[in-house]
Amino acid sequence: MFERLDTAARKMESFVCVGLDPTPERVPIDDVLAFNKAIIDATKDVVSAYKTQFAYYELMGIEGFRILEGTIQHIRDVAPDHVVVGDAKRGDISTTATAYATALFETWGVDIATIYAYQGTDSVEPFLQYPGKGVYIVCRTSNPSSRDIQDLVVDCTDQKVQVFDRVADMADLYAGSENVGLVVGATYPDDLRALRMKHPEPHFLIPGVGAQGGDAEETARAGANEQGGGFLVNSSRGIIYASSNPEDFDIEARNESEKLKNLLNNALKPNGGFKAETLTFE
Amino acid sequence: MFERLDTAARKMESFVCVGLDPTPERVPIDDVLAFNKAIIDATKDVVSAYKTQFAYYELMGIEGFRILEGTIQHIRDVAPDHVVVGDAKRGDISTTATAYATALFETWGVDIATIYAYQGTDSVEPFLQYPGKGVYIVCRTSNPSSRDIQDLVVDCTDQKVQVFDRVADMADLYAGSENVGLVVGATYPDDLRALRMKHPEPHFLIPGVGAQGGDAEETARAGANEQGGGFLVNSSRGIIYASSNPEDFDIEARNESEKLKNLLNNALKPNGGFKAETLTFE
Repeated sequence: MFERLDTAARKMESFVCVGLDPTPERVPIDDVLAFNKAIIDATKDVVSAYKTQFAYYELMGIEGFRILEGTIQHIRDVAPDHVVVGDAKRGDISTTATAYATALFETWGVDIATIYAYQGTDSVEPFLQYPGKGVYIVCRTSNPSSRDIQDLVVDCTDQKVQVFDRVADMADLYAGSENVGLVVGATYPDDLRALRMKHPEPHFLIPGVGAQGGDAEETARAGANEQGGGFLVNSSRGIIYASSNPEDFDIEARNESEKLKNLLNNALKPNGGFKAETLTFE
Repeated sequence: MFERLDTAARKMESFVCVGLDPTPERVPIDDVLAFNKAIIDATKDVVSAYKTQFAYYELMGIEGFRILEGTIQHIRDVAPDHVVVGDAKRGDISTTATAYATALFETWGVDIATIYAYQGTDSVEPFLQYPGKGVYIVCRTSNPSSRDIQDLVVDCTDQKVQVFDRVADMADLYAGSENVGLVVGATYPDDLRALRMKHPEPHFLIPGVGAQGGDAEETARAGANEQGGGFLVNSSRGIIYASSNPEDFDIEARNESEKLKNLLNNALKPNGGFKAETLTFE
């Protein structure tokens, strides 16, 4: 799966993923599906992926799932090479995990699902039975209380080994499959950098840039693999609600996407991204 | 919320929760909603709660959500005092967690939702803003690979303190609210007993009895609080698929529910439940 994502990122020259997280009260037009379609149409030339946060569709009930269906169909119609991430953070085992995987990959038709691995490999493997599909395991999240569980030290001989490291190790178990990546937030750049150094292979889905405070350029440098890729930076509210004006919300969404795309790309240019830092030492 | 569940358990004299996890290929009649309704009608006098596993409804797409809606409505119609657990194991933060909570408690109308706390208190608190509703935090699960993350030792001075203990500690943070319980599997009875001793207050939702190998009587004794309650034992496949015969699946579901109810109740009678063990020493 992640090969396809690499291809999309190369083709679009963009590591940007737009989070399609619409809530009726914030969407500047009446029709949520039309809003999503307008955002997709306006941004598809400057991003390589879309992420649908299932919570917002579930909130709208059956109508929400119709909107989800229509949104994914529209991406397939107008941006067939783009990757669709289903951000559902599902986590279960056995036949229940298989039911979730089938729901995400076949019923809704996403390419990559976000999942929890709190229940161990039993909660990952059912998702790997779908050729051409992949998962991002929630590993190191961007919120303040992520420390409650994720930061617990689990190795008495090395205070740097924390719960989230063990979750990251699980991705390496499936390194050969190229189907398992990690969710690593942008708000803890030292952890992002350390995880990338320890785990050169898995793809990273990186939320937390923008509204949540993560710095885009630092994120790109910390999250990229040795080939200068292997990650997606997701921005939701920063892009889709860039303007609350029904006349220009899509244009502003595109502008914000392009700005983020350029920040990430510039940061990864040979020496390019380091200019700002270098300047401070002149 | 859990007061209402205690009342239901006392009234029905039953700690049994029936897991309504239908898959079209295993349901012995064509109509999944009619199947759920028949199971509810047949079992409502011997159980106190129903648990809908969202994965199986999501798998069926929009039609599945109609079945979910109809199922919950039927429980309200014929068993209004019974509690409905939405087993969705959601886990997210901030406005996304609020969207999931609103979806579960208001759109679908469940009483208690299962959630993950891997993202810390940020992923619990949005669910506690709904008066009369509650959550079970996934703590110690019943599957073999639960050890991968849940069993990691997090206290170098006490090898008995594991990740799942820290998750259980989170329930105590909200002890006053009476709205936070824990999911603790039946297949690790020593852990179940230890968790109950350390955490006398929170309600436990206990899966893993029956098909997964947990012993019902041992589970009741290990999971009950000092008042001899404070838990639900869930059985799904063992009850709803007790018979694959369209003529008697509901009768057999009731028989299995009643059997489980009696096993749990007998185990908790003063000295009663210990008879079998005592006999082996005669």
